[in-house]
Amino acid sequence: MNFRLAAGAALAAVALTAAPAFAQSKMSGADVIKKYNKDNDQTLELAEVINLGVKLFAEINPDGDTTLESNETAGRITEKEWKQANKDGDKTLEMDEWLSILRKRFAKANPDKDGSLDAAELDTPAGQAVILMIVK
Amino acid sequence: MNFRLAAGAALAAVALTAAPAFAQSKMSGADVIKKYNKDNDQTLELAEVINLGVKLFAEINPDGDTTLESNETAGRITEKEWKQANKDGDKTLEMDEWLSILRKRFAKANPDKDGSLDAAELDTPAGQAVILMIVK
Repeated sequence: MNFRLAAGAALAAVALTAAPAFAQSKMSGADVIKKYNKDNDQTLELAEVINLGVKLFAEINPDGDTTLESNETAGRITEKEWKQANKDGDKTLEMDEWLSILRKRFAKANPDKDGSLDAAELDTPAGQAVILMIVK
Repeated sequence: MNFRLAAGAALAAVALTAAPAFAQSKMSGADVIKKYNKDNDQTLELAEVINLGVKLFAEINPDGDTTLESNETAGRITEKEWKQANKDGDKTLEMDEWLSILRKRFAKANPDKDGSLDAAELDTPAGQAVILMIVK
């Protein structure tokens, strides 16, 4: 995607200004589970969360290219997370880089380490940070 | 996906026997680029390769769940890669784990580190290993 290289400087400028104020998620943990949990266990397991993150990647990618630019992730991830995830330094996030942030957030939201988030865990600040990456 | 927990023992057994003999890819580097390169630069860039890996994940997942089981990846990744990628030890590969293998393979196939694979690089053994994870 050579056009991205050309756009790199502009995107870098956006990245510096797009450090998102964390938007409060619009959905409660109970609502998220009601809408997205498919196996009726009243929790979202890691695999379900990762899968929802894969879907959201496409949904917030209106230019339909293969990566997320910083304006597409604004309000969802922090500038610090962006830099840590963007190991190849290419001003864009590939899917695996995006998911690396989501997996870390899942771990923070899952202090009992049972591998699934219940409604109460989703309602914590850490859980809301997960929701920002799985719900449009 | 509680059913996967129940199936864990069976899948573990499969994993032990499914260390794939590396299938030779059926497509040459030139054919792969002809079919999959969308930006007419005669290479596959990292972002394009990751995106193709995302698509293949769905295509080789006939049970349509959120993860790959070892029988679904047979012939594509090695048992060693599976274990290294499956850091959460849950007998399945989530998307990010799958892509972590692909990103490593890309790096091996791209010794000049220019961030893109040309036909000659795709025709090397390392390049063919990339093709196994992006072409069904």
